[in-house]
Amino acid sequence: MDIKNKIEAANKDALERMAKIQPILVDIELEAMNVIPAMDEKTILHAGPPLEWDRMCGPLKGAIAGILVYEGLTTDIEEGYKMAASGEIQFDCNHDHDAVGPMTGVTAPHQPVFVLEDKETRKKSYCTINEGRGKVLRFGGWGPEVLERLQWMKSVLAPALKKAIAHAKGIDIKAIISESLHMGDEAHNRNRSGTYLFMSEITPHLMETVDISIAKEIFTFMKENADIFNLNLSMPHSKLIADAARDIDYCSLVVAMARNGTDIGIQVSTLSREWFNAPATMVDGLYFPGFSEKDACPDLGDSTISEVVGIGGFSMAASPAIVSFVGGSAAEAVSRTERMYEITAGKSRTFSIPSLNFRGAPTGIDIRKVVELNEPPLINTGIAHKEAGIGQIGAGLTSAPLDMFQDALRAFGKKYL
Amino acid sequence: MDIKNKIEAANKDALERMAKIQPILVDIELEAMNVIPAMDEKTILHAGPPLEWDRMCGPLKGAIAGILVYEGLTTDIEEGYKMAASGEIQFDCNHDHDAVGPMTGVTAPHQPVFVLEDKETRKKSYCTINEGRGKVLRFGGWGPEVLERLQWMKSVLAPALKKAIAHAKGIDIKAIISESLHMGDEAHNRNRSGTYLFMSEITPHLMETVDISIAKEIFTFMKENADIFNLNLSMPHSKLIADAARDIDYCSLVVAMARNGTDIGIQVSTLSREWFNAPATMVDGLYFPGFSEKDACPDLGDSTISEVVGIGGFSMAASPAIVSFVGGSAAEAVSRTERMYEITAGKSRTFSIPSLNFRGAPTGIDIRKVVELNEPPLINTGIAHKEAGIGQIGAGLTSAPLDMFQDALRAFGKKYL
Repeated sequence: MDIKNKIEAANKDALERMAKIQPILVDIELEAMNVIPAMDEKTILHAGPPLEWDRMCGPLKGAIAGILVYEGLTTDIEEGYKMAASGEIQFDCNHDHDAVGPMTGVTAPHQPVFVLEDKETRKKSYCTINEGRGKVLRFGGWGPEVLERLQWMKSVLAPALKKAIAHAKGIDIKAIISESLHMGDEAHNRNRSGTYLFMSEITPHLMETVDISIAKEIFTFMKENADIFNLNLSMPHSKLIADAARDIDYCSLVVAMARNGTDIGIQVSTLSREWFNAPATMVDGLYFPGFSEKDACPDLGDSTISEVVGIGGFSMAASPAIVSFVGGSAAEAVSRTERMYEITAGKSRTFSIPSLNFRGAPTGIDIRKVVELNEPPLINTGIAHKEAGIGQIGAGLTSAPLDMFQDALRAFGKKYL
Repeated sequence: MDIKNKIEAANKDALERMAKIQPILVDIELEAMNVIPAMDEKTILHAGPPLEWDRMCGPLKGAIAGILVYEGLTTDIEEGYKMAASGEIQFDCNHDHDAVGPMTGVTAPHQPVFVLEDKETRKKSYCTINEGRGKVLRFGGWGPEVLERLQWMKSVLAPALKKAIAHAKGIDIKAIISESLHMGDEAHNRNRSGTYLFMSEITPHLMETVDISIAKEIFTFMKENADIFNLNLSMPHSKLIADAARDIDYCSLVVAMARNGTDIGIQVSTLSREWFNAPATMVDGLYFPGFSEKDACPDLGDSTISEVVGIGGFSMAASPAIVSFVGGSAAEAVSRTERMYEITAGKSRTFSIPSLNFRGAPTGIDIRKVVELNEPPLINTGIAHKEAGIGQIGAGLTSAPLDMFQDALRAFGKKYL
């Protein structure tokens, strides 16, 4: 078998393994450090490829300084900045700890996390619970209301959902995501139907397991954040699927793509944990009133794990309504999806797009095709203010830089040629 | 002003009046006869234009015989048939009593009904609560489980929802329907997102007003019937909007279109309560396993009130996923919507279609255009078995016969020329 055939076979195998994964929400763990591998009380995880404190963008620094207050390691945000810069805290990226997080993606030892598991392989993935819109930590927002919300999530929301998830004996997140694509979501920046589907699954169990006033409080929180709540289930779901394609000999598919506001990076199946990075791009977007591109932080977050498995920007044809949020026209949304078939290894058996007659979503970014066709993966995403403490200022479209695919392909060639 | 200008002005006025209507779910009345005009203990309302017992189709006869048992007017279904045939019961069509009903559309004096109201005009519309899928009265299904479900709906479901609706101080159904069109519904044969949106609105109030075990039972009933539950809110919502266009001098727009399984009929604004009928058509559809066209009853139900206001078959472009239920391709769904712009008076300000860049739905069927262009209104719909007691056997597409539009246009001409 020549090398080309070996690569094709490996990529086909990868798609098979991805299709077989069934991400089930099996638990909420109240202390991330109890379940996330290699995490101790002084470890803070973040989105994107790893980077040192000095190179971090404003929102990421702010989110870290804030979460140190939440963790009780310091008493105010200024002290948080000092502690973070002191070398006392160990930083690492979510992706290398089986985790993902939207925007700054900060994951701290004492935060509650969703635990997703594939029943067959018993592999797991982790993600914090979405805080909703407004001033929120994941965009580097900080203030008493941010801390209060995080504390409510830890003491009220997470324990109640934990009980309900146990009573439900798990919730099938893949079923929710695939159905949500038939209901106008693309499951990255539009998650409304996914949230309603999750609410429809969890609520009867909430009613069985917690006090009615708590059930009502939680139901209302999910409803008010319907646009975004399910993102933090969609992401670890995609992470678990993408991880199934890791470490396959000859496999040229991307298994992680993530941004930290400074760098964007990819990992490739056969190239193990090596990151291939490029400067994070600016997002071409629609801004909330009072903000413009000059206020924007470069692209940020682990949420591009969606695109890695064929949803998000790759399934925009399923979500014409999203153009009112990220910009563009309905026809462009369709043509964006169509272009992504050019650079992917196959069509998803799991995710299908009604407006393309239920064609499977374009799945498995092949670094060879990206480089050969000069066709970068397309991303849609939220936009953070470049300074800490402000939060989201818009949403829009961008594409992954070609450089990092060229670097990865070079390393791939070096390994096999 | 010549007559053509008078008609154009009247039709424009009609669209304005329709756009202003805000259908709010204000109550559930436990006894239909307490609120539906001109209804007594011996009145049974049904879908479509009026017709006498002998001409009724199998499912409608079966539903009537069944509901007489539910009403306590007789003890078994055979006696129900005899009583219905005896002349003792008065039949009339829903539309002439401010009501609508899906399929057979049977509405009986002691059934609970949703009450929708427009706050400005104080006009009201009524509809029974959807029974869900399987063997159900509205398709002429009968048996102990049908009766039991109807009794549970009367004694448990309706009183609980009534309390929750009162606690919510009403639920804005137009907001739900217009959002559901951005979430893959067309709000006639696909109502899943609409149901989830309704659940998200009502559940916090259910939790406040009824016992938790009842709240859970009702939540689960709505969830299990998500595909269809919201239809019985979408329909009276559309009825209230369409009724706003009634009785406008020179207005050539359709204000009701409905089928009883024997006839299909329309009412036209300036022609008041006169029905223009044609034989009900057969539906070209996808059949459930074990059934085929030879089992099918001709087209049935008041649900084409959806098409009258621009949703349903007229907004199929918003709902590519529906083709898996009613047949056709995603491209055909788009072209069906595009054809409907030809025969309508304008674009809806309320309902918009994301895949057409949020173009307003084609609204206000103009009998002049239908006849001139030989372009019949397109309908998508469920298919009932032609015999009573069996229920739904499929779903599909049909178009309204041109004859009745020609007849209506002739009457229109006679009035003004």
